[in-house]
Amino acid sequence: MPIITLLTDFGLKDTFIGVMKGVIWSIAPHAQIVDLTHEIPPQRVVDGALAIAGAAPYFPGGTIHVCVVDPGVGTARRPMLAAIGNQYYIGPDNGLFSLLIKKAEDLTTPPVYIALNKTHYWLPQVSNSFHGRDIFAPVAGHLANGITLEELGDPFENPMVINIPVPQRSTEGWRGQVMQVDHFGNLVTNFTREQLTPGIGVNIVVKDIHLEEVVTTFGSKPAGELIAMLDSSGHLAISVVNGSAADRLGVQADEPVTITFTSEQVS
Amino acid sequence: MPIITLLTDFGLKDTFIGVMKGVIWSIAPHAQIVDLTHEIPPQRVVDGALAIAGAAPYFPGGTIHVCVVDPGVGTARRPMLAAIGNQYYIGPDNGLFSLLIKKAEDLTTPPVYIALNKTHYWLPQVSNSFHGRDIFAPVAGHLANGITLEELGDPFENPMVINIPVPQRSTEGWRGQVMQVDHFGNLVTNFTREQLTPGIGVNIVVKDIHLEEVVTTFGSKPAGELIAMLDSSGHLAISVVNGSAADRLGVQADEPVTITFTSEQVS
Amino acid sequence: MPIITLLTDFGLKDTFIGVMKGVIWSIAPHAQIVDLTHEIPPQRVVDGALAIAGAAPYFPGGTIHVCVVDPGVGTARRPMLAAIGNQYYIGPDNGLFSLLIKKAEDLTTPPVYIALNKTHYWLPQVSNSFHGRDIFAPVAGHLANGITLEELGDPFENPMVINIPVPQRSTEGWRGQVMQVDHFGNLVTNFTREQLTPGIGVNIVVKDIHLEEVVTTFGSKPAGELIAMLDSSGHLAISVVNGSAADRLGVQADEPVTITFTSEQVS
Repeated sequence: MPIITLLTDFGLKDTFIGVMKGVIWSIAPHAQIVDLTHEIPPQRVVDGALAIAGAAPYFPGGTIHVCVVDPGVGTARRPMLAAIGNQYYIGPDNGLFSLLIKKAEDLTTPPVYIALNKTHYWLPQVSNSFHGRDIFAPVAGHLANGITLEELGDPFENPMVINIPVPQRSTEGWRGQVMQVDHFGNLVTNFTREQLTPGIGVNIVVKDIHLEEVVTTFGSKPAGELIAMLDSSGHLAISVVNGSAADRLGVQADEPVTITFTSEQVS
Repeated sequence: MPIITLLTDFGLKDTFIGVMKGVIWSIAPHAQIVDLTHEIPPQRVVDGALAIAGAAPYFPGGTIHVCVVDPGVGTARRPMLAAIGNQYYIGPDNGLFSLLIKKAEDLTTPPVYIALNKTHYWLPQVSNSFHGRDIFAPVAGHLANGITLEELGDPFENPMVINIPVPQRSTEGWRGQVMQVDHFGNLVTNFTREQLTPGIGVNIVVKDIHLEEVVTTFGSKPAGELIAMLDSSGHLAISVVNGSAADRLGVQADEPVTITFTSEQVS
Repeated sequence: MPIITLLTDFGLKDTFIGVMKGVIWSIAPHAQIVDLTHEIPPQRVVDGALAIAGAAPYFPGGTIHVCVVDPGVGTARRPMLAAIGNQYYIGPDNGLFSLLIKKAEDLTTPPVYIALNKTHYWLPQVSNSFHGRDIFAPVAGHLANGITLEELGDPFENPMVINIPVPQRSTEGWRGQVMQVDHFGNLVTNFTREQLTPGIGVNIVVKDIHLEEVVTTFGSKPAGELIAMLDSSGHLAISVVNGSAADRLGVQADEPVTITFTSEQVS
C-alpha cells in the first residue's frame, strides 16, 4: 500500500487535516499517511511549490503527494493529478507543481497530467471551499487502491506553471532573493552551488550586511555570528549560529540578496 | 484494526500526545492513530464539542475517538465512553459530546453510555492531571483489541449535555454569533442554510459591517473583499478573500452576528 | 515492526520531519512512526533530555527513539546509538541522553553505546546541517529492519553527560528551579515527592509568591487560583487553575523556586 503525503496551508488549529485522513482511510484503510507540512503561509502557492519539490525526492516510488494551497478553490481552476517519474501529485492546477513539471522535461519517461473530472471518485457532496476533503483526499485513496489514471480523469497538456524567481546574472555577479525563512530563522536564498565558483571570492549582501565567506558547518563560527552556508537543500542560506538570522536582520521572504565576485583567490 | 482519533487541548509543545500514542500502541500495536487537532483553546469544552461533532462523520464505522478537553480532571466528573451510531467516543463526562448526544436522539439504534470504572483497563498508576494518558488512551487501546463495552464499565443514562448557542429568532430575522475563528481567520457562525431562505434578501451584520449577499465561492469577489458564504461545514462564515476576517475586523469567538431579512427578492 | 519515535527542535513549519519519515519508510516500509514533539526550543539540549527521559517509559520494548537537538551538527560531535533497557536511542552524542544514561547505572543489564560510523547505513550524500535526515533517520530504519548494533558502528564508553540541575539542600529546605513551562503555562519544577515530607509544612516561593499547600487536583481550588501540585510527570508544578501560571507570574524556564520547611504539622 503506497504512502500518501499531505502538504497544505491549512494549519493544525482546526480538524481539516484529520478529516482528510478520515476520508482517505475510509477508502484505503491501509494507506500510510504522513504530513509534510501544513504551515505553508496561507495562499502562498510559490512556497508550496518549493516545499513539495524539495521533499518528494526523499520518498519511495509510488508515493502519492496530496498538495493543497488553493486560493482559487471553487472557481474554474482544474483539479489535477500529475504522474512524474515514479510518484504522483494531486492538487489544484494552479502552479503548485511548477518545479516538478519543469524538472520532468529532463526525464526519459514523459509525465502524464490528468484532469480530475470523474466525480464518481469524489465525495458525494462537494463543497466550494474544501476540495482537499471532497476531491483530492478521496482521489488519493482510490489511486492508492489501484484505480488507474484513466479512470480518475482525462489526460491534458500544459498544466499551469508559475514563475519561481531564479538568480539573475549581473555585471558584478548575481542578483537573487530570500525564498523562505525556516523554523530556525535561517534565510534560504535561491542561490545554489551554481552561483559559487570555487576559487572566486564573493561578497554576499543582504540589507546592509556583507559576508565574504561561505562556511561549511554551523560549528565553523562561534554562537551568535552571522554566516553564509550551503544548507541541506543545496541552497545558500544566511544564518546566525545557534540563533535566528530573520530576527537579527529583520528579514522576510522576498528580500533581495546579491553576490558580487571579488578578487580571484588562490585556490 | 480500528482507527483511533485524538482531539485535545494539549498542544504540540510537550510530549503529551506522543505519550498517549505510546500507551495505545503498547496495548493495541496495530491501531491506526490520527490527530484531529490538539489546538482546542485550553479548557474550551464547547470548542471541543463542535470540533468532534464536525469531524466524526468523515470517519468509517468502528472508529474510536478519544477527546480530552477536561478542566475537571482529577475531580468527581466521570470518565465515559459513548457508543453512538457505529462509532465510539471516549473522554470526560463534561459535555464534550453534547452535540453527538443530541443527534443520537434521531437514530434508530439507541446510544449506549458507559461509565469507565473498571480500573483493570487503566494504567496501573493514575495521576490526577493526565487521564488522557492514564485512563482514556488505555481504554481506547483495549476497545480496539475487542474488549466489550460491558467489560470496560457500567452503563449509565443522561450524560452531561452543555448549552451550545443556537441562533435565536428575532422580529426582523435571527440573532447568532461567531462560534470559531479558523486558521485562515474565517469567522464561522452558528447560522446554517436553515436561517437563509432562498429568495429572501438578507443583511448580515457583525460589528459595524453589513453584508447583503451570500456568495458561493471565495473566487466570486476580488482578493481583499469581505464576503459571507456557507463554508465546508455548512455554516455561514464571514471571510476576507485570500485574507483574514478576524484580523480585519478584530473579531473573536462569541462575537454577536445578526441576520435581518430585507425586501423580498425576485428569485 | 518496531515503533520509531521522533523528538526534535525542528518545528512543523518546514518539511524537515516529513522528509525524515520519507527516509525511514524508504528503508523500513512498515515502521510505525510517532512524533513525540518537534517544539523543543531551538538548541536547548537540556529540554530535549528531559522530554525523552519522561516519554520513553510509555513506549513498548524495542521502540527506537530518534532525538535531534543538535547545535553541533556538522562538527566533530559523534552520531551515537544507545541501547538502554529494552529500547534504543539514536542522535548526537551531546548530552541529549544524559538522564537515561544516568538511570542506566541502576539497570542489571548494562547499556551499550555505539558510535555510528558505518556510512553504508547513511544516505549516500550527507549534508553538514541535517543529520536527522542523512544519518539518524536511515540508521533508525535499518535498525528497525533488524540490522545489528555491531553492523551500525563500533562500541564506545562514556557518552557525553551534561549537568541537569537538581534540587540543592539548604539550611531551611531546598533550592530548585523551573525546568519547563508546558502548553498550559504550568511551571514544572525539578522538585519531586522526594523534597516533600508528609507531615512537614512547606512554603513554596517563586518570585514573590508564597504557596503553603500542595493540592492533589486542579479541582481543589476555584478557577484562577494559584496552586502547587505534583503533576503527571511526578514533578512539583505551579499552576493557575484553568489558566496560565507563566502568564500570571511572568516566569520562564530557569526561574529559581525554593521550598522552606515550616512548623511540623499534625498529619
